[in-house]
Amino acid sequence: MNQLPAPGLERLCLHTITTKPWKIEEAARNYSAAGVKGITVWRDTLEGRNISQTGEMLHQHGLEIVSLCRGGFFPSIDPEKRKAAIDENRRAIDEAFTLGTDKIVLVCGADPAQSLEDSRKQIHDGIAAIIPEAAAAGVRLAIEPLHPMFADTRSAINTLSQANDLAEMLNTPWVGVAVDVYHLWWDPELENEIRRCGRNNNLLAFHVCDWKSPTTDMLNDRGLMGEGCIPLKKIRSWVEEAGFKGFIEVEIFSNEYWKMDQSIFLERIVKAYKEFV
Amino acid sequence: MNQLPAPGLERLCLHTITTKPWKIEEAARNYSAAGVKGITVWRDTLEGRNISQTGEMLHQHGLEIVSLCRGGFFPSIDPEKRKAAIDENRRAIDEAFTLGTDKIVLVCGADPAQSLEDSRKQIHDGIAAIIPEAAAAGVRLAIEPLHPMFADTRSAINTLSQANDLAEMLNTPWVGVAVDVYHLWWDPELENEIRRCGRNNNLLAFHVCDWKSPTTDMLNDRGLMGEGCIPLKKIRSWVEEAGFKGFIEVEIFSNEYWKMDQSIFLERIVKAYKEFV
Repeated sequence: MNQLPAPGLERLCLHTITTKPWKIEEAARNYSAAGVKGITVWRDTLEGRNISQTGEMLHQHGLEIVSLCRGGFFPSIDPEKRKAAIDENRRAIDEAFTLGTDKIVLVCGADPAQSLEDSRKQIHDGIAAIIPEAAAAGVRLAIEPLHPMFADTRSAINTLSQANDLAEMLNTPWVGVAVDVYHLWWDPELENEIRRCGRNNNLLAFHVCDWKSPTTDMLNDRGLMGEGCIPLKKIRSWVEEAGFKGFIEVEIFSNEYWKMDQSIFLERIVKAYKEFV
Repeated sequence: MNQLPAPGLERLCLHTITTKPWKIEEAARNYSAAGVKGITVWRDTLEGRNISQTGEMLHQHGLEIVSLCRGGFFPSIDPEKRKAAIDENRRAIDEAFTLGTDKIVLVCGADPAQSLEDSRKQIHDGIAAIIPEAAAAGVRLAIEPLHPMFADTRSAINTLSQANDLAEMLNTPWVGVAVDVYHLWWDPELENEIRRCGRNNNLLAFHVCDWKSPTTDMLNDRGLMGEGCIPLKKIRSWVEEAGFKGFIEVEIFSNEYWKMDQSIFLERIVKAYKEFV
């Protein structure tokens, strides 16, 4: 495992949220200067901007727009809110198309006021409802299973097995799965499910960071690769054996790192990517 | 589901840690006065006490000693620490026998310095090592799968499926499983695995509390039954359909509730037990 060669910089993608203090223009300039080749754009960074021009700006910096983050949040006990969520996802598809990316990450959502089974059904129905728009825009929807600690409000899809089931049930080239090591590293079925995901051509994205011990905040205390206990090289080897050749996306939410000088943080990300992924 | 009748007080058990500010003598007196019939004793409450006399004291208050909490923590990258953990578990078995309970809850442990696979193997080997002492003392070992958010340091056994696998592999009447709703509520396989657990006579314990939204502390922000999103009645119905007729154990770690007047908290627990479990 430790013999797995370091991935090339040409496969390194950063999520804009990883360097949250930077505006998207700053992020683009700095990522590009550091040799990063991909960017996943969080929707908040587009606020008040011309989306098409922002996409051009990113391309001019030599960045491939790997995906738009994020769609989803389909479930609600309130039918009006479910309808609004579907509309919002249609806007996200438009945005992705205009920006110039062919992928949206779905954080599926959950509503603690109803059962997980109901939330799961609404996630299925919500995704099914937007497939025509996704197909028309040439945008693939990547279901990201979230850690079970987010099952109450963020996602009722908490294992790769569930995400695979859902993608296979929807059975369209426009729906696949995003594998994020933070959410899935603990799962004894992970290797099998990554293999299954690849076999069905559903493996659309690969996100990395690390799990710190102790983790002091459920949402915003993710670690830089190498400073936690996630077997990154092992999981990357599974993902690559499953046929995935796409970008390796660094997605770190961290109150601690967001306080740092982001240029120094970016240097550390590139170093950690080469050494630990 | 909502028609499931309230469980009787004769099945209510409290973990001493639920009312952590109380010494065990206070807990015994107050539980008993509130009509609680079972107590699960955390080992820290026995410090500096004659264990046999403490057991008698609990019995004199009409309390059945449901289990001793907790053994486990078998894995370590350091072989000396693994050996020490096995010795410590043997002491816990002695303590359980002397106290007068026939069950120990195992929080299996994990070491972020090694792979989950290694930790799981060491858990298996650690439990196997203490089965002779458990059998001699007439003490059953209940493997408690812990929420995946504790996979780094607290337990590499994170689903009921894994706990069932392990109990079936060890294949002895002295090893079974503890089902805690806090750790397992999110699992889409939960109903099936509870059924399997019962079918194999491995369902030894049932712990309840609730999952609050938001949860502000990974360890010590558990909710009182009814104030979160866990489908308690549904899960209780599965556990009972699987043949479990034992105590329903309230195990709440909560910085918030520990700050309260514990007598008022106890009243709220009894009320919540009747209404929401």
